Amino acid sequence: MTEHTVSAYENELRGLAQRVAEMGGLTEKQIVGSIDSLIRSDLDLARQVRAVDPQIDALQREIEEVGILVIAKRQPMAIDLREIVGALRIASDLERIADLAKNIAKRVIAMNGTLPLAKVTGGFDAMARLALERVKRVLDAYAQRDVDAALDVWKADGDIDALYNSLFRELLTYMLEDPRNIGSCTHLLFCAKNLERIGDHATNIAETIHYMVKGVPLADERPKLDTTTMAAVGL
Amino acid sequence: MTEHTVSAYENELRGLAQRVAEMGGLTEKQIVGSIDSLIRSDLDLARQVRAVDPQIDALQREIEEVGILVIAKRQPMAIDLREIVGALRIASDLERIADLAKNIAKRVIAMNGTLPLAKVTGGFDAMARLALERVKRVLDAYAQRDVDAALDVWKADGDIDALYNSLFRELLTYMLEDPRNIGSCTHLLFCAKNLERIGDHATNIAETIHYMVKGVPLADERPKLDTTTMAAVGL
Repeated sequence: MTEHTVSAYENELRGLAQRVAEMGGLTEKQIVGSIDSLIRSDLDLARQVRAVDPQIDALQREIEEVGILVIAKRQPMAIDLREIVGALRIASDLERIADLAKNIAKRVIAMNGTLPLAKVTGGFDAMARLALERVKRVLDAYAQRDVDAALDVWKADGDIDALYNSLFRELLTYMLEDPRNIGSCTHLLFCAKNLERIGDHATNIAETIHYMVKGVPLADERPKLDTTTMAAVGL
Repeated sequence: MTEHTVSAYENELRGLAQRVAEMGGLTEKQIVGSIDSLIRSDLDLARQVRAVDPQIDALQREIEEVGILVIAKRQPMAIDLREIVGALRIASDLERIADLAKNIAKRVIAMNGTLPLAKVTGGFDAMARLALERVKRVLDAYAQRDVDAALDVWKADGDIDALYNSLFRELLTYMLEDPRNIGSCTHLLFCAKNLERIGDHATNIAETIHYMVKGVPLADERPKLDTTTMAAVGL
């Protein structure tokens, strides 16, 4: 292989990682936008979040296409192959995270300007901040190929589950207290579930980083607050 | 390329498609098991569904691994490349379908033997049958590489959304009628959402089949009963 070819190949790999980072940045913005639109009942912002989503889908398709072509063209060694497969997996998780943010925005639109229960906005804010922080930290770990930082994200999965469970119980209480809350609380419990799932995808990305760097999957069961989780109606 | 090599390559492609079909069969069983466990409040069956899920995850990882290796080793032509990328995408959707079935089973376990509202089991049965039929039909379309059959599945997406919306409204009514129903109805509305999402993944698979055979993505917006969907609290 000539030096020119090697360098073109390295550029391809770097380009792929850059696109994943770009997708990550957009996805973070979508999380922020969706939760701000929820807390402030901001329909315009919610519509904006919904409108941006196709860009993220397109980025994922592009990453998949480029990644597969590089594999077919370069027949990469094991470590580069993991790099590319990792990019494809992370792009897939980011697409799903963005989709969950979009679904929150869609619920804000469906609630049509009804402010969510003021009592629970604090809980949503806390949960969203935790979810966002996990996504940010795992994307930093990806940028640095830092397995330890990825493992930190992976281990902290229980935090967001605990917040979700408590928010969920709270929402149920308000539904029981006053049946007129049932409609909006139903929307809110799906939103809370979406935030919890965003956290799960951050955990998936942490697992992918481990595989990319170490070459073996994280075999252990993911840390879940199982007792709380199974007992709560929210699962 | 010698004849021997071509034949080994063809075997690899065939083996990949067979694994996807196997995964599809297991996934169908998981849908049936999860919904039967829900309707009959059968905790043993629910636990069985939960226990099978890791096998399906392992199959997906295996399909991804084999597919990527074939791409790297064989540098396939465009049509074969689409065949392999299609197998990876379908395996990813099947994994998510199986995950949604597992989540229904986990809710059955969390409900711990409380029979769901008898009034809604019919609705769940109808919705589950529709979801299962869509998965079956799209897997048949994959086996036959039949774009028209895949497009039929793709177009019929609205049916399951309509059933979901009506089941959702019904569940809300029972919550409003008697607050003691709120706990179980909350479980059931997540189960209904999971069945709706199983239908969405069948639609994704139909799109993948179109891409595999035709080489271009289905660009149009997916058919959704948008007016109903946005109006309903269930989204």
